[in-house]
Amino acid sequence: MTGGRRGAVSVPDLVERARNGEARAVARLISLVEDASPLLREVMAGLAPYTGHAQIVGITGSPGVGKSTSTNALVAALRKAGKRVGVLAVDPSSPFSGGALLGDRVRMQDHALDKEVYIRSMASRGHLGGLSWTTPQALRVLDAAGCDVVLIETVGVGQSEVEIAGLADTTLVLLAPGMGDGIQAAKAGILEIGDVYVVNKADRDGAEQVRRELRNMLALAERDAEAWKPPIVLTVAQTGQGVDEVVEKIDEHRAWMESSGELDRRRVRRARDEIEAIAVTALRSRWGDVHERTELDALAEKVASGDSDPYTAADSLLETYTD
Amino acid sequence: MTGGRRGAVSVPDLVERARNGEARAVARLISLVEDASPLLREVMAGLAPYTGHAQIVGITGSPGVGKSTSTNALVAALRKAGKRVGVLAVDPSSPFSGGALLGDRVRMQDHALDKEVYIRSMASRGHLGGLSWTTPQALRVLDAAGCDVVLIETVGVGQSEVEIAGLADTTLVLLAPGMGDGIQAAKAGILEIGDVYVVNKADRDGAEQVRRELRNMLALAERDAEAWKPPIVLTVAQTGQGVDEVVEKIDEHRAWMESSGELDRRRVRRARDEIEAIAVTALRSRWGDVHERTELDALAEKVASGDSDPYTAADSLLETYTD
Repeated sequence: MTGGRRGAVSVPDLVERARNGEARAVARLISLVEDASPLLREVMAGLAPYTGHAQIVGITGSPGVGKSTSTNALVAALRKAGKRVGVLAVDPSSPFSGGALLGDRVRMQDHALDKEVYIRSMASRGHLGGLSWTTPQALRVLDAAGCDVVLIETVGVGQSEVEIAGLADTTLVLLAPGMGDGIQAAKAGILEIGDVYVVNKADRDGAEQVRRELRNMLALAERDAEAWKPPIVLTVAQTGQGVDEVVEKIDEHRAWMESSGELDRRRVRRARDEIEAIAVTALRSRWGDVHERTELDALAEKVASGDSDPYTAADSLLETYTD
Repeated sequence: MTGGRRGAVSVPDLVERARNGEARAVARLISLVEDASPLLREVMAGLAPYTGHAQIVGITGSPGVGKSTSTNALVAALRKAGKRVGVLAVDPSSPFSGGALLGDRVRMQDHALDKEVYIRSMASRGHLGGLSWTTPQALRVLDAAGCDVVLIETVGVGQSEVEIAGLADTTLVLLAPGMGDGIQAAKAGILEIGDVYVVNKADRDGAEQVRRELRNMLALAERDAEAWKPPIVLTVAQTGQGVDEVVEKIDEHRAWMESSGELDRRRVRRARDEIEAIAVTALRSRWGDVHERTELDALAEKVASGDSDPYTAADSLLETYTD
């Protein structure tokens, strides 16, 4: 911890050390992201040439399907396949605390000493509780640090499934028997986001039925002949059963993404969202932050009291701060 | 359905009819919101003077706690108390379909013929899957239409709990025995968002234990002496047991919100978010929409390929479209 957060930071030095796989440099860069450091512009410019290698794998599923256990088992299987792995656990649940409720310390203890595995929890201070623009930037850090695969999951009650899918190259949707997931799946639109479906706790009654229902529902979805057909894998994450097959399917999906051009399309779309989010954040800070009274606050009071409406107020705001 | 979507719309006429409690006019206004109609500016300006009466009550909880049944039971209890009730079921799950998966027709059939109850499902096409700026505008319509209480809940797998809380005057957090909710509660930060806690399915084993755990956890949270102390109510929504008490607690919370000044504070904060979201949406449309190649697309390609970084790209975007 010598040096640590004190002392001048040399961004080129940090970037160099992170690229060489130094865990402390990676951690430091992600902290700069979390803290929205003014150094971030320089960090992102420095990382840009080294990004694009990692496969971002999103892990989604209702509470109780075994998301944490599956992530843990996947890390083991990916390591066995010789891959450098990053894990980003995002906590979008609380806009108030601003801190990840589950720290790194309580998660993924199996892999804590493996230096080819980076594990990081972070709070995402998104507007109105969603995943914030900080998440893609943390992914950039792990990517530039040479991870072959970065697993991303949310902590908390089933939030942000779709947002995770939006950030990932490959989205795993986890289900388990006895969760009423058949119906829930249809509700949540997870049939539209899954690239690989995993029926976990496959040693329990009903796993086959979940697979059958899922297969029927997926069969109903219209797809092009060249489109990816999402496979369904049965696992028991607790024992590792089936997890190697999940890794195979992740590899196959990556290969398909590359050959079909879908990888590039998804990545351009993501970059677009990221640029937009940064531009919007910059504008928001021009409009004023929460701690001081600004023109926006005055407008908000008029809208709350019924003396104005949100469109008229938005017009005033834009007139003042743009053109 | 004569006239329907064809024919010229007179906004002042629609607003007048909605204020007089005409369900079709209310439905039409919410459709204008959903369709992001260019008439919305005029609609919101017309509604503004009549807003601020309704108490917005958010209903959150993991899948399986009985959210729909509880909403249904609450509507009945609120109607018995002589209140005009609106129900807004928001489906933020899919950015792809753009349509609410569960239509109004399959929900809330008990109240379908009561003209003092407005029921509406809507898709929310939020950026990256969150609740969009359309939700607060739909709430404005129901508010101006004279609803005393508007219940808002999300459809789907436990998404957007926190976002619902951000839109509500009063947030109900539902729990049920046997869901592992004790731990899940801590994960999701629901202890920070609940104004009233409801332990549903109280006829099952373990309800008392859920209450006890919850009480202990709430006791740990630091609160001012004048702060609201969230009550815990046990219900069996299926039979209606305990639901009148929930209504009482909702009333008490409203009274506390008014006397403490918290109601005004929450509403100004919400108006602020809403103005910001509209301003940002206006800017995004200047930056280009998804269907045509714009400067933003060109920048996104450079970022995706590592030739630029998101900050430099955001700077270019802002330089072109502002100042």
